[in-house]
Amino acid sequence: MRPFRFVLAAILCVLPLAAAAQYNGEAATIIGVMNKSAADWNRGDLDTFATSYKDSPDILFIGRSISRGYQQMVATYKRNYATREQMGTLTFTQLEVQPLDVRFATVTGHFHLERTQAGGGNADGYFLLVFEKTLAGWKIVRDDSTSLPPGQQ
Amino acid sequence: MRPFRFVLAAILCVLPLAAAAQYNGEAATIIGVMNKSAADWNRGDLDTFATSYKDSPDILFIGRSISRGYQQMVATYKRNYATREQMGTLTFTQLEVQPLDVRFATVTGHFHLERTQAGGGNADGYFLLVFEKTLAGWKIVRDDSTSLPPGQQ
Repeated sequence: MRPFRFVLAAILCVLPLAAAAQYNGEAATIIGVMNKSAADWNRGDLDTFATSYKDSPDILFIGRSISRGYQQMVATYKRNYATREQMGTLTFTQLEVQPLDVRFATVTGHFHLERTQAGGGNADGYFLLVFEKTLAGWKIVRDDSTSLPPGQQ
Repeated sequence: MRPFRFVLAAILCVLPLAAAAQYNGEAATIIGVMNKSAADWNRGDLDTFATSYKDSPDILFIGRSISRGYQQMVATYKRNYATREQMGTLTFTQLEVQPLDVRFATVTGHFHLERTQAGGGNADGYFLLVFEKTLAGWKIVRDDSTSLPPGQQ
């Protein structure tokens, strides 16, 4: 039994390391999606920014109201951020990925929108996202981001 | 092959119904957790209210800051809602359960806190929760609830 036990012990030691390495890889991929989405936003490219979300009628956005579905999200973004000045410059900080299981993970963090007064002024808030590992990669399926004016943080 | 085909067709017809029935059952259970938590709150029983959350150091609360873990959550609730008047009366509306997979689901909705001016005044907001099906039942593992003063909805 000794060789078997040794192999079993080796497997039991290696498995958590392999799982941790895989998780770190997935977390890095998800952080990459977040960073890319901020870069897309800051180039003024809302259509590419939107592709960090899953193209599904079931995705949900929670802020000062609840809206549903990819098409409505894109329409709302284009209405609320019609000009480059209204889009401003987006920065994510305190990003943290927590896995739920192999297919879902949450991301929390803080966003800062630097804007001119004419563009709507600065805005800040914390957010909670749920990511799903889809065939097209990790995509946002739930987004709760409440934007608060400075001084109300 | 006909009997086999019939059985297969019957299974294919019944499976989605069975899955839908199971999902409806889980959704009703989760709505029950939400309703119970509001009733616990409105009895002034914060300790029982807190048991709708998973007793884990990894759970996250997102509002005007991010806090972590069951113990910190209970301490924060007890600090912010020290008196019955500060707790007020909590009502959930627009509750919607969406399954992620068999172990996770999201709940979105609106909360209203009816309070005297001395208690802090009314508050409202939309929220996103992630529920996990644990051995102790469906429990909240992520909570993004931003409370806004009236008029800022």
